[in-house]
Amino acid sequence: MVETVGGEPLFRRLALIGIGLIGSSVARIAMERGDLAAEVVVNARTQKTLDRVMELGIAHRVEIDPAAAVRGADCVMLCAPVGAFAELAAAIAPHLAPGAILTDVGSTKQSVIRDVGPLVPEGVHFVPAHPLAGTEFSGPDAGFTTLFVNRWTLLTPPAGTDPEAVEKTAELWRRCGSMIETMEPGHHDRVLAIVSHLPHLIAFTICGTADDLADESRQQVTKFAASGFRDFTRIAASDPVMWRDVFLNNREALLEMLQRFMEDAQAMARAVRWGDASYIEDKVERGRKIRRSLIEQKQA
Amino acid sequence: MVETVGGEPLFRRLALIGIGLIGSSVARIAMERGDLAAEVVVNARTQKTLDRVMELGIAHRVEIDPAAAVRGADCVMLCAPVGAFAELAAAIAPHLAPGAILTDVGSTKQSVIRDVGPLVPEGVHFVPAHPLAGTEFSGPDAGFTTLFVNRWTLLTPPAGTDPEAVEKTAELWRRCGSMIETMEPGHHDRVLAIVSHLPHLIAFTICGTADDLADESRQQVTKFAASGFRDFTRIAASDPVMWRDVFLNNREALLEMLQRFMEDAQAMARAVRWGDASYIEDKVERGRKIRRSLIEQKQA
Repeated sequence: MVETVGGEPLFRRLALIGIGLIGSSVARIAMERGDLAAEVVVNARTQKTLDRVMELGIAHRVEIDPAAAVRGADCVMLCAPVGAFAELAAAIAPHLAPGAILTDVGSTKQSVIRDVGPLVPEGVHFVPAHPLAGTEFSGPDAGFTTLFVNRWTLLTPPAGTDPEAVEKTAELWRRCGSMIETMEPGHHDRVLAIVSHLPHLIAFTICGTADDLADESRQQVTKFAASGFRDFTRIAASDPVMWRDVFLNNREALLEMLQRFMEDAQAMARAVRWGDASYIEDKVERGRKIRRSLIEQKQA
Repeated sequence: MVETVGGEPLFRRLALIGIGLIGSSVARIAMERGDLAAEVVVNARTQKTLDRVMELGIAHRVEIDPAAAVRGADCVMLCAPVGAFAELAAAIAPHLAPGAILTDVGSTKQSVIRDVGPLVPEGVHFVPAHPLAGTEFSGPDAGFTTLFVNRWTLLTPPAGTDPEAVEKTAELWRRCGSMIETMEPGHHDRVLAIVSHLPHLIAFTICGTADDLADESRQQVTKFAASGFRDFTRIAASDPVMWRDVFLNNREALLEMLQRFMEDAQAMARAVRWGDASYIEDKVERGRKIRRSLIEQKQA
């Protein structure tokens, strides 16, 4: 449970467009703390989801129409899969309040700036953001108030963005428990390609490889799943639409990292084939080294 | 804590050759339950490790000479990395007691049968085994008594092995909490290649790929390690010598599975490059499906 501060709310009205794992975690924090926003409005694509949101008590109000959801909001946060951003931005842009902050939680930042940036009306502050937090669960039931605690939120404001708007967005994430860093969007996309997007692509792929094996072997894959494979399937259990959109919207950096990885995997295959023991040991040692720095940096 | 049964010990003397995660877990269970063996003897390569074993109180007796460790033992379990098995088997073979069971815990079974089988003296029962359990920790301190609970132990006895010896080995693992299955060694090696060996090879490789990035990016790899990468480094933190030996001793099956995986990863790269959204979604869905069967089979 995040500590309730009970101070002055940062925003009068926070509109969450999409209410999956990230959105519903922000909603829970906002409802619980009271100092993120005086009012929380949630938009989702289906009435069923909105009914569930009210049942869970994680919004003051729900709206099936995104335009209605953003009207009068001084902070609008896009929490849908990044592939839906262009359409959503087109739907809400004319209804954004002057002086409002438009932010998002997408895992790819160049695509968000490409898709949303040109549609942002004069006088609205566009502050792209990405909280590095997640589980393999999705939907409004999946969120929880400690999801962002001690995790990074990366802000990638375009040049010339109002510093006060950037600071207010940063403060919102701080109140969610996050640490903040500002980053150039292209650099963000490369770092995320190697630490998150490529690992997910690989996990999805190896599950497919296993699934393609003959029927008898496949049963035994799950029956005898040793610890290695268990961790891969945990990663691979994530939301399909979200990840499809991430891959397609960070294409260049992802393909570069995948290419580097494939070269390294080929080199490893060669070492296995030719019995190059010291090469293999060296690679395994490097895994340990990275693991140790994660532990030192409390990210493990 | 495993329940102490206090029944008749299965063996008079159990000799553990090697005392890493698996060996020291078996030792702890044997010392605690009392019904695995009346006496537990441990052999390791260094006196320092043996001193630690006595300090931990997980053996009745330690021996720096493997031949001395196995003398008079009615069960000998090889718990060293599989690459050391040929040399160890040569050292102990002349000293094995008639009627003793010689078993092991190696992750590759065809290589064990190839390396150890020919050295087993007449009258000694050779029952290769593989408990599918592990963590990223190694050494005598890493073991714990519940490591094998609800995990599979696979037995791969060569044709003609004494059924009573197989049953006694199975019973030892049952008393450790394991479920038992008997399997043809070549089939074992293929199943393990996909559920364990390939995932580990991939995890080691991607850590190396990240480590090769420019210095600035590398720092940020660990600083911003999102959940995907964290899980990979956990897998990659395992013991380098053990895994080197596994890869080199399951070469054929591992290279075949790696080849299949690389083809699938290339197909995924192509889908990303050409924006084939439904292909990507389908692959992600399959990951979920495998995850669900793991959960149903309580292996998640």
